[in-house]
Amino acid sequence: MSDCGNIKLILASGSPRRRELIKLLGMPFECISVDADETTCRTNPAEAVAEISEKKARAALAARKSQGCSQVGLQPNEVIIGADTVVAYNGEILGKPLDDADAERMLLALSGNTHFVYTGVTLLYYDKAGQISQLSFAEKTEVHFADISIDDIRRYISTGNHRDKAGSYAIQDEFSVHVTGINGDYNNVVGFPVSRLYKELKAILKI
Amino acid sequence: MSDCGNIKLILASGSPRRRELIKLLGMPFECISVDADETTCRTNPAEAVAEISEKKARAALAARKSQGCSQVGLQPNEVIIGADTVVAYNGEILGKPLDDADAERMLLALSGNTHFVYTGVTLLYYDKAGQISQLSFAEKTEVHFADISIDDIRRYISTGNHRDKAGSYAIQDEFSVHVTGINGDYNNVVGFPVSRLYKELKAILKI
Repeated sequence: MSDCGNIKLILASGSPRRRELIKLLGMPFECISVDADETTCRTNPAEAVAEISEKKARAALAARKSQGCSQVGLQPNEVIIGADTVVAYNGEILGKPLDDADAERMLLALSGNTHFVYTGVTLLYYDKAGQISQLSFAEKTEVHFADISIDDIRRYISTGNHRDKAGSYAIQDEFSVHVTGINGDYNNVVGFPVSRLYKELKAILKI
Repeated sequence: MSDCGNIKLILASGSPRRRELIKLLGMPFECISVDADETTCRTNPAEAVAEISEKKARAALAARKSQGCSQVGLQPNEVIIGADTVVAYNGEILGKPLDDADAERMLLALSGNTHFVYTGVTLLYYDKAGQISQLSFAEKTEVHFADISIDDIRRYISTGNHRDKAGSYAIQDEFSVHVTGINGDYNNVVGFPVSRLYKELKAILKI
């Protein structure tokens, strides 16, 4: 991104995948791991991820305030970004697997079917009036899986790559042999919707 | 892939992107750069990429024959893979840009519009009768671009990342901020359709 002055992005995430994605924006950034409450009463996946992304962004703001990064935890040239991803299938929201059996259950359910990946994003930034403003949104990507044999599912789980992944898979690793196609933003499945985030940042930063 | 015995894939490509993709199949492989005739009289993009992928695979076979890799250039446990990618937009086939001005013309045309990426794949392998068989196919992925400013196009071209890329962009680099979504296999845009290739290899290798 050009002409972004001295804007700095603060990504409220310890995810190596999101750290790689934020580099694509071409702006200075730092990542901070936050310990946010990731529970929600919402059953609508778009609303659920938007809410949790807000909790992560606000946890980053609070952490930076306690670290003395300005009185409120945000400098005028900074934008805090929170993101949260879930898989929605057949009326159920699938988060990270509890254990290997839970991962096997999820992947067996998704095999041969179409599911949706939702990523919610919250931006905290200074508006023109000098107040901290919030923008939250969610993006949806449709994902199609081939029929996956139980042997293939167990082999994938044995790699450990399913851990800490919503829906128990990563679309960018060896699991990709089972993904016949998607409809939407690929990066939204990896970690956050890079294209939508670029558009929203351009709008709020007027660049 | 399991139970693949001592099967080895021979990728007829010097592309670093395709080298990364073939690793996802989890099978032993080697890559060889080939000097194939990449011209075709075909105007149908699916037929054009299938034909050029065959030329690349056959060039690899000939090169290996001349190197003494068996009398015909293929061992019974080997599968040669050729691949070729083009962009199709508005009835025109866009290959690699001739120069920076050609890249700018292509990206301006694609800005704000939907185009299709076609990758053709040819497999050369020993069939049950001990003869070399050929399987060729093409996969299509729809790609949507945001409106891209001329400044953003020129900044991308200044990185040099557009060179040697069909359509003058790589979906996996910083250009991804301009890709609002796709419909189909993402890896088909990067270099070849990993999921379809996995399925076809399982079928011909009976694993």
